[in-house]
Amino acid sequence: MTRFAFTVEFDGRPFMGWQRQAHGPSVQQTIEDAIAAVTGAPATVHAAGRTDAGVHGLAMRAHADIAKPIAPFRLMEALNARMRPAPVAILACEAVPDDWHARFSCVGRSYVYRIANRRAPLTFEAGLVWRVVQPLDAGAMHAAAQTLVGRHDFTTFRSAHCQAESPVKTLDRLDVERTGERIAIHAAARSFLHHQVRSMVGCLAMVGMGRWSADDLRDALEAKDRAALGLNAPPDGLYFVDAAYP
Amino acid sequence: MTRFAFTVEFDGRPFMGWQRQAHGPSVQQTIEDAIAAVTGAPATVHAAGRTDAGVHGLAMRAHADIAKPIAPFRLMEALNARMRPAPVAILACEAVPDDWHARFSCVGRSYVYRIANRRAPLTFEAGLVWRVVQPLDAGAMHAAAQTLVGRHDFTTFRSAHCQAESPVKTLDRLDVERTGERIAIHAAARSFLHHQVRSMVGCLAMVGMGRWSADDLRDALEAKDRAALGLNAPPDGLYFVDAAYP
Repeated sequence: MTRFAFTVEFDGRPFMGWQRQAHGPSVQQTIEDAIAAVTGAPATVHAAGRTDAGVHGLAMRAHADIAKPIAPFRLMEALNARMRPAPVAILACEAVPDDWHARFSCVGRSYVYRIANRRAPLTFEAGLVWRVVQPLDAGAMHAAAQTLVGRHDFTTFRSAHCQAESPVKTLDRLDVERTGERIAIHAAARSFLHHQVRSMVGCLAMVGMGRWSADDLRDALEAKDRAALGLNAPPDGLYFVDAAYP
Repeated sequence: MTRFAFTVEFDGRPFMGWQRQAHGPSVQQTIEDAIAAVTGAPATVHAAGRTDAGVHGLAMRAHADIAKPIAPFRLMEALNARMRPAPVAILACEAVPDDWHARFSCVGRSYVYRIANRRAPLTFEAGLVWRVVQPLDAGAMHAAAQTLVGRHDFTTFRSAHCQAESPVKTLDRLDVERTGERIAIHAAARSFLHHQVRSMVGCLAMVGMGRWSADDLRDALEAKDRAALGLNAPPDGLYFVDAAYP
C-alpha cells in the first residue's frame, strides 16, 4: 500500500462540492472513480478542505492509499485521462509517508475570492467570479478587513451547518486588491469555519458599497451572532488556493 | 436614425463565429436579434473584424443604425438584458457620426493568443486557451517572431478562404511573453489576412518546441506558399483585443 498525495485543480461549477454526495456529482467521487478504474480497487480520497457546491480549487491537496504498484507520474497521467471530460486535473502526484494526511497534517489554508466589479453581464466567467454592479471601494474594504485579522470568535461568519468544535480561529491574512475592474480578496488561516470566507467577503462588499462602515464590521464581529451577518457572498468567486504542510 | 458604436465582449465557444450564418448561432445574430427586440426594427451590425468559430472578443468594436430614439446607456442595458444567457456583453455604447464605420474607419487591430504550456488537462479554460504539452521556449519564439514583423507577403500564413485583395500586410507587433505556464502572443497590424494570427502562432509553436529554427520560419515566410505552413493553431486561444480609430 502506497500513500499518494495529489495537487488538484477543479472547476466547481458542475459539482455539488468536493465531498461525495448521494444526490449529485462531486470532485471526490470523480477522482475516486478514476482511481478505481485505473487500479481495479476502490479508494477513499481525503482532502485538505471540503469545498461547497460551486467553489473552485486551484491547488487542493488530497491523498489516497493505493495497493497497486504504480509510479506517481503514471498514476497522474492515468487519472487525468480517466477523468476527462470532467473539469478536474491532477497537477502533481507524489508518494508520501503513511502518516502524511492531506487534512490532519495541514497547517495552513489559503483562499482567494474574485469579484468582477462591473455593470456588464459576465461572458467568459459566469460562475467563476462574483459580479458586483455597485462600485466598490477596495481601499475601504482592505482597511476594514484588518479588523478581522487575528484570533477572534467568528460565530457571526459561521454557517449553521458548521461542524467545527470552536468558533475561535486565527485569521492570518485578509487582503483586498483591485486591478482594473477585478478585486481579489486573499484569506489565509490554519483553518476556517464553514462559510467563513464567503461571509467575510459579503460583509467586506457591504463596506465597499458604502452601506457599512469599518465600525459596522467590527460590531458584526463582536456580536458573535449569525444574525449580525451583512451578506454571504456566492460560491462562484471562491477558490481554494493552497494548503501548507510542515 | 442614430449610429451607435458598441464595444463587445464575447466568449466564442458556442458560436459559429462573429458573422451571421444560416447553420448556427453567431455573435452578430445575437446582437441583431436583441436590437430588433429592443427597438422593434431590424438592424445590421458591422464589426471591426469577423472572427472565426471559437475565437473570442475582449473589446470588439461594432456599429448599427437605429431609428428609435434611445439613450446609449439605456440601449446598452436593454441589449445586455435581452442577450442573456448568451455569453455576449456590450461593455460600452455611444452615439457616433454617420460616417464612422466600425470596419472601414478602423486603422489598427490587435489580438492576443493564449497558450497554456502544461501537461495537465484544462479545467476552467477548456476552449479558452491552446494547451501545448511539449515545453515551449518562449524566448526563442519571441526572437523568431521578429522575422515576421514589418511589411511582407504573408501568403504562407493565409487561409485558402481569405478574401483580401493582397497578401501583403504590415505587421506592427508580434511579441511572445511567458508568465509561469502561460504564454501570451500579442499581434498588432492595420489589418490581418484570414487565419494569419493562428498560422503565425502555429509556426511560432514549432519554433518553441525546437522543431523549427528561426531560419525555418524565415524560409516559410519567403516561400509565399501555404504548403510551407508548419501548423495552424486552434481558434481556442485567439482573442480580438482592440480596434483603433483616428
